[in-house]
Amino acid sequence: MKELNIIKVGGSIVNNEERLTTFIKNFLKVSTPKIIVHGGGSSASELCRKLDIPIKMKDGRRITDKPSLDVAVMVYAGLINKTIVARLQGHSCNAIGLSGADLNIIPAKIRSGTEIDYGFVGDITPEDINTYFITRLLDEQVVPVFPAITHNKKGQLLNTNADTIASSLAIALGDKYSVNLTYCFEKNGVLRDIEDENSWIKHINHEEYIQLKDQGIIHEGMIPKLDTAFGALQKNVQQVHIKHVKNLSNQIGTTLTL
Amino acid sequence: MKELNIIKVGGSIVNNEERLTTFIKNFLKVSTPKIIVHGGGSSASELCRKLDIPIKMKDGRRITDKPSLDVAVMVYAGLINKTIVARLQGHSCNAIGLSGADLNIIPAKIRSGTEIDYGFVGDITPEDINTYFITRLLDEQVVPVFPAITHNKKGQLLNTNADTIASSLAIALGDKYSVNLTYCFEKNGVLRDIEDENSWIKHINHEEYIQLKDQGIIHEGMIPKLDTAFGALQKNVQQVHIKHVKNLSNQIGTTLTL
Repeated sequence: MKELNIIKVGGSIVNNEERLTTFIKNFLKVSTPKIIVHGGGSSASELCRKLDIPIKMKDGRRITDKPSLDVAVMVYAGLINKTIVARLQGHSCNAIGLSGADLNIIPAKIRSGTEIDYGFVGDITPEDINTYFITRLLDEQVVPVFPAITHNKKGQLLNTNADTIASSLAIALGDKYSVNLTYCFEKNGVLRDIEDENSWIKHINHEEYIQLKDQGIIHEGMIPKLDTAFGALQKNVQQVHIKHVKNLSNQIGTTLTL
Repeated sequence: MKELNIIKVGGSIVNNEERLTTFIKNFLKVSTPKIIVHGGGSSASELCRKLDIPIKMKDGRRITDKPSLDVAVMVYAGLINKTIVARLQGHSCNAIGLSGADLNIIPAKIRSGTEIDYGFVGDITPEDINTYFITRLLDEQVVPVFPAITHNKKGQLLNTNADTIASSLAIALGDKYSVNLTYCFEKNGVLRDIEDENSWIKHINHEEYIQLKDQGIIHEGMIPKLDTAFGALQKNVQQVHIKHVKNLSNQIGTTLTL
């Protein structure tokens, strides 16, 4: 099967010219076909603060009321998405930004049945993703760029965690491609010692992950990311890596195996 | 030749649930293939005010510094664009939002050689528009939705007047389609008496337009719109109409002829 690289980046790369340039430079080296999924939480929070919109969080997940949703749509699907797309085009890398509403590509269900009301938050299932258009774009050497915005097929835009979008796309496209899913963040990989950037773990399997989690070595913020990542491996995703944006095209980073 | 309907709407339709519903309802009745082009100036100005970003205008055109550009990208390519797309999807009308950067569809040149510096404003030429992808989307019954955002092919997003984008798309697609271009605004058409909504002119040709302009009957705000519209007719655009969103599917409005 043909390889497909899916790269998830935090939206904060766009806040800073140097980080954006580093990301673009390294992403251009990644072999095609390839896909970007991005968040934008920190930029959205910043805009919320400027607009006096209270930021509500629960277990690291944003509670999305209407004003927060509007900000998320503006920042994720607007500023961050189009900035990344334009930069790629500037390097002759043909890209297209696609929210979940565009071409109905990522339909979602508004989260319900939970103890607290998360607001305009969408849960997605890989089976619902419209892989037909994605595959056609990839076949034409186009790089799809997905913000963390989905919709409920009934006209309501929703906010969906970007890590989840990345793993769901990886699973959905796993039938057609040998998918290599990479989560980029600000560390060199999963660290044994949160204070030591060089303590990144080269390989980690699910059993080791559970042990390190039980020992409290893997810290809280990483847990949902790793759970999502292992979830993708348990479906039909070939490889998952966790690494720094600057190491996209080298071997530094953590490789997850089952 | 097959007919193509290009509808330009102001972004302010999205500010108001009733107006948005009216637009969507009427747009659904327009025969396919069809395209939407939208602005968003009033929403962008509102967000600029909230963020204390000074709004600079010259002859009804926005001067776009970096903070204003970011707002334009957020509001036009983000909130307004994705809201329209999601609403159309909610009515089983398959749509896709495309800024000028996406698929390199509308390349622009940053405005230069003018007396004043307009900032991040892009001028476009119909010949540069990538009609290949647009035509393919139309062939698949997809409705492309264009915000007033272009880019310079070198990674810089730009703001381009939505009326100009609409007429340029109409001209660019005029070789392949019999294009019917409609400018929607808040009046019933070109009015003989600005105070009387019922004084809309049914037909106006270029000579009559010049006369009415000379007589001061056509007021200032309409002049660039009509110049752009007559410019499209002078190229290969078949029909141009100016009408209210609520009359999209009926005969009320002004038809322009050469």
